[in-house]
Amino acid sequence: MREVAILGIGQTIIDEQWEKSLREIGGEAALAALKDAGIPRAEALFVGNMLSPILNGQNQLGTFFSDWVGMWGQEAVKVEAACGSGAAAFRAGLMAVASGEIESALVMGVEKMSDKAGHDVTAALATAADADYEADQGVSFVGLNALVMRRYMYEYGWKHADFAPFSINAHANAMHNPYARLHEKISVEKFEKASMVATPITLLDASPTGDGAAAAVIVPADKVSSVAGRPRVRVVGSAAATDTIAIHSRREPLFLQAAYASAKRAYEMAGLSPNDMDVFELHDAFSIMAVLSLEASGFAERGQGVRLGLDNEISIQGRVPVCTRGGLKARGHPVGATGVYQIVEVVQQLRGECGATQVEGAQIGMAQNIGGSGATILTHILKAD
Amino acid sequence: MREVAILGIGQTIIDEQWEKSLREIGGEAALAALKDAGIPRAEALFVGNMLSPILNGQNQLGTFFSDWVGMWGQEAVKVEAACGSGAAAFRAGLMAVASGEIESALVMGVEKMSDKAGHDVTAALATAADADYEADQGVSFVGLNALVMRRYMYEYGWKHADFAPFSINAHANAMHNPYARLHEKISVEKFEKASMVATPITLLDASPTGDGAAAAVIVPADKVSSVAGRPRVRVVGSAAATDTIAIHSRREPLFLQAAYASAKRAYEMAGLSPNDMDVFELHDAFSIMAVLSLEASGFAERGQGVRLGLDNEISIQGRVPVCTRGGLKARGHPVGATGVYQIVEVVQQLRGECGATQVEGAQIGMAQNIGGSGATILTHILKAD
Repeated sequence: MREVAILGIGQTIIDEQWEKSLREIGGEAALAALKDAGIPRAEALFVGNMLSPILNGQNQLGTFFSDWVGMWGQEAVKVEAACGSGAAAFRAGLMAVASGEIESALVMGVEKMSDKAGHDVTAALATAADADYEADQGVSFVGLNALVMRRYMYEYGWKHADFAPFSINAHANAMHNPYARLHEKISVEKFEKASMVATPITLLDASPTGDGAAAAVIVPADKVSSVAGRPRVRVVGSAAATDTIAIHSRREPLFLQAAYASAKRAYEMAGLSPNDMDVFELHDAFSIMAVLSLEASGFAERGQGVRLGLDNEISIQGRVPVCTRGGLKARGHPVGATGVYQIVEVVQQLRGECGATQVEGAQIGMAQNIGGSGATILTHILKAD
Repeated sequence: MREVAILGIGQTIIDEQWEKSLREIGGEAALAALKDAGIPRAEALFVGNMLSPILNGQNQLGTFFSDWVGMWGQEAVKVEAACGSGAAAFRAGLMAVASGEIESALVMGVEKMSDKAGHDVTAALATAADADYEADQGVSFVGLNALVMRRYMYEYGWKHADFAPFSINAHANAMHNPYARLHEKISVEKFEKASMVATPITLLDASPTGDGAAAAVIVPADKVSSVAGRPRVRVVGSAAATDTIAIHSRREPLFLQAAYASAKRAYEMAGLSPNDMDVFELHDAFSIMAVLSLEASGFAERGQGVRLGLDNEISIQGRVPVCTRGGLKARGHPVGATGVYQIVEVVQQLRGECGATQVEGAQIGMAQNIGGSGATILTHILKAD
């Protein structure tokens, strides 16, 4: 497999974009990435999306977008792994370039969620769970995560307020990200008084969905050279792993086995360890997921991920800065697009483009994208040189 | 890119399988392919599916099935390109193995369509078209194909009955395929008297949908050797191309540009030409599509594809045998699974397992899978040695 690098990135604001269609939102990010890469088109297109068949009545997004962004005729396909669709599309594009089959891949993640009513979106999100054994029994996706959080609190003795730093950190960082969904600083008091969604998950534990798209251009690493002020960003680790789709089938429901396995493989591939990561864009769809991701990826012992927040280790100046652009919690979570946003944000950190939330001298960064409640997890490690 | 071969195949009957779930149908084909390959699991799973988010309330089919078929923990993803999803998943698996990233890929195509009412399925199938500019204006998917067929008849002067041989050939071949949806010989008279669906497309121009799954195991070619009675089947050509998603945007709506481009690339990759093909599993979702596929892939001049049927060139003994196991028309069209069925059937031909519809001495075969009305087209060429 030949090595690949990221030549360009693009993203749109995440919001309820009533005035724009699925087509326009995706196109905006894709064209921004191509422009940033300095090429008019790529050889193939890989689109990550989860809900467009249900919410937008549109399938075949590969061709839908190749047509729209000026890549008529080129190979194009959609990749789906629930909320892990973005990283899954990125990995598909990566393998296509790494195989030598193509010389450039445009990867985009896109989601347009605000055209339908809230209950429709809730039902659509439940398709990430097991339809027969979870969703059809009436549990929503946030309900499943609430069960996990409750169990974690019981098992390890943490209080709800102990999770506050994750939300506070994400909201603080999003203040400096113009693309973020939420620009609102929060406090421990606000966190404790937030409306309940599904006990013990409150509005400030849960990430807001939204309309948005992000994109990246992948090329062989030897086609890119570092220029002044803009290092070459290589993908030095890439791995995907799965768990059971239903949480009740897991031996250890509080351990993200697929995060562990995909991070382990990505570390081995890169010859790196958790200590080498200057930044970690993790999948904080719910604060409990941020904690479990840190534990399974080797940043904390089991049951102790919460402490990284309490000890301020997750801030920009901390040992493992997470959600540096706001994370899912405050940048927002346009589900099938999120994995590409994470990769774009790591590239921004490695390029030194993050202003007030720049991690000083960041050279190595990791992104971890989760589909379902830990069912599909992809880990990517990027390195600037 | 290293060369790959198909180590095992599996398929289920295509029918209204009321007694079986999406999970069971997909599992049956996957386990059959693993058994045929003689391995307990593959390193990664690639699932082709189009309608499960809409019709079955289930996303994340990669993990859904890796969990179910005994591949817990392994990498898994879903690939979607409307009715071209099966071949798109096959190509994704092929590139993953060809890249050297993994050593074995299980590819499956699956669709469970009979749990919902007919009008729900019709609406779901329309997601293959352009939602904004085609489907939302009220045209169904069969309606779009009817417009193309009508134009073709007008442009080149053919009568509806001239298309009969495609349907008759498919139905005749399906008589000998135990997995086929329809086992019913038809005649020119029956073809002419068939119920109208969308003028000029009748019930005998259109393929029946259904519940079904097919699967194949891909490994590096050097890991497979020919054994007595079972040749090694390599993938010598693989290409994907796209067209505009909406038919009205095409310069030549009667020419399948993406079939032309993907077939051309696959021929070049294989160092072969149309004349070398012993069998061609084409995408006869509608009889007009079979004709256009033959023309764009180099088997007939524009406007003359119909003649291949009239001259009996498409039969098992003809110059270019098509739909040798019944094609979409009679084997059936479980949309996202179809592309994998086609590849499985070409393997069956190259192994000499087709009994009464065996093409004598078949060594090279082609499969072409279409998403939307020609919007995404993938062509694969297989060769036995």
